[in-house]
Amino acid sequence: MSDRLLIDQVLAGNPTAVARAISRVERGGTIARDTIRAIFSHSGRAHIVGVTGAPGTGKSTLVNELAKEFRRRRGQVAIIAVDPSSPFTGGAILGDRLRMQDLTGTGIFIRSMATRGYLGGLAAAVADALVVLDAAGFDPIIVETVGAGQGEVDIAKNAHTTVVLEAPGFGDDIQAIKAGILEIADVLVVNKADREGANRTAAALEMNLSFNKDEGAQAWRPPVLKTIALKGEGVTAVADAIEKHRAFLGEHGLRESKERARIEDELVNVLQRELVARALDVATPQRIADLIERVASRELDVYSAAEQVLGKFDGRRPTKDAGQV
Amino acid sequence: MSDRLLIDQVLAGNPTAVARAISRVERGGTIARDTIRAIFSHSGRAHIVGVTGAPGTGKSTLVNELAKEFRRRRGQVAIIAVDPSSPFTGGAILGDRLRMQDLTGTGIFIRSMATRGYLGGLAAAVADALVVLDAAGFDPIIVETVGAGQGEVDIAKNAHTTVVLEAPGFGDDIQAIKAGILEIADVLVVNKADREGANRTAAALEMNLSFNKDEGAQAWRPPVLKTIALKGEGVTAVADAIEKHRAFLGEHGLRESKERARIEDELVNVLQRELVARALDVATPQRIADLIERVASRELDVYSAAEQVLGKFDGRRPTKDAGQV
Repeated sequence: MSDRLLIDQVLAGNPTAVARAISRVERGGTIARDTIRAIFSHSGRAHIVGVTGAPGTGKSTLVNELAKEFRRRRGQVAIIAVDPSSPFTGGAILGDRLRMQDLTGTGIFIRSMATRGYLGGLAAAVADALVVLDAAGFDPIIVETVGAGQGEVDIAKNAHTTVVLEAPGFGDDIQAIKAGILEIADVLVVNKADREGANRTAAALEMNLSFNKDEGAQAWRPPVLKTIALKGEGVTAVADAIEKHRAFLGEHGLRESKERARIEDELVNVLQRELVARALDVATPQRIADLIERVASRELDVYSAAEQVLGKFDGRRPTKDAGQV
Repeated sequence: MSDRLLIDQVLAGNPTAVARAISRVERGGTIARDTIRAIFSHSGRAHIVGVTGAPGTGKSTLVNELAKEFRRRRGQVAIIAVDPSSPFTGGAILGDRLRMQDLTGTGIFIRSMATRGYLGGLAAAVADALVVLDAAGFDPIIVETVGAGQGEVDIAKNAHTTVVLEAPGFGDDIQAIKAGILEIADVLVVNKADREGANRTAAALEMNLSFNKDEGAQAWRPPVLKTIALKGEGVTAVADAIEKHRAFLGEHGLRESKERARIEDELVNVLQRELVARALDVATPQRIADLIERVASRELDVYSAAEQVLGKFDGRRPTKDAGQV
């Protein structure tokens, strides 16, 4: 397929073309950049919903049900499942097949992304995949993450509405509190609500909310909802809460400010990747190896080693194109 | 305290000086760099043990017991508890106080580090804190993390021996498998082994190990151990396994190769931070704001915006010192 044809088909919402374009942006480098450039002006319409929760909370089931609910309400729905499982274990792949079967024939687009193997890092790959899905007309797009660690928080930044999922009987603690992700939650869900302790978990979340959030007149107060995703119970209420939050963001001009903050982060990320690539291009591999050796022998610290790399660096790529400048 | 005196006292192993030096490296920038430079040549001796596991697995209890065991066996032991809890929730701080009480009078140094608020990122702050503790003569140093997400994996890279913790009855799944951290494990521990399902969890870990690891003649096969950390049971066996792995690394020259890989990563991280700071220095805040605006309105994509920043960038800091060059 020619580049132009691929882009046209992405913009027409063709799932095969979308899948192929995501593979391109996952590869990083020039091919990712060119793909994004060609479609970027068509993006910016989708509502991005992050769903985050520890393994075992029933996250995939809720996300599938939520996607089906939105599919009934709106047009094209997509899921990006950020799967921290290693490619080695195989478990996730099996799980994915089961999930995908559940979505077969529903017209919902689903894509798994693993936590490693991306040149520019996972967060960048997810951000670029979101641009592809957005430009292809998917709305909402649900991004599902395990929700712990900085990398996951970086991904959550892409979302306009963040749903944090808990389940009762998960040891003594509420995972979201422990993981410090409660303050990014716009909607809180206690799934597996037919299990013992569901009310206790919901109450603990409520209590922590009132502690954490200062309630300005214009503040959004995250609702705490209960679901039994396996039976589809409570899912419409979650979809309602997401729609309500979407409207709230729009009314208060908060979507725009979220967007700007996210773009600034992305800009810094792109600068990082590009600049390091250039700096390492200037230093020869032998020179880098020497510096590492000197740090390993404690002759030099890492900061001084970095300075030695930068000493020869003038910000440009000096390599192949040097003669043409 | 003068800088020189502080450094001397760090090298003498004075806990107050060590705490102060860690606060300095946490601040980032010049002060962190100068501190590291002054002590770096004294580092490189400590064995760094990473302990990673989901909230609720009893990680803190095991780490405390393990620290006490090493304290009995060797000299100075330190713990860095990487705590993803938000400063807002307060829960962690309370938990920390309880932990620290448990260690009072044991001569074990403990330091909590939160997941945000570090200029250069948490992984960098932890790496620098490890240099301080190492130079101060602590050995082993235990780094405790929740173990999910890329940020946590980055921190785990600092460890010479990684202990991955599970607990039975944690929903249907093994957390480490789901989180893809099984392949970084050198020692596997099923804690709360008096609970139902402990043997099943241990067996599942064993099975996944045999799937995942190719067993060369020289390969380390991670042992699967059971503990009841609350009662101190099984902790000596974990300490033994860590010592054995330490010896294994030494015998096969693997400590050196781990070190080199880690130094290379750190070098790239330092380059990233430094270069982005320089590039953003060149562009005026107004120029950055304009670019963000143009991306927000989809007139420009992020990659093109980054190129515009870099177009004016020659790798040097042009600001205050420009006249003196």
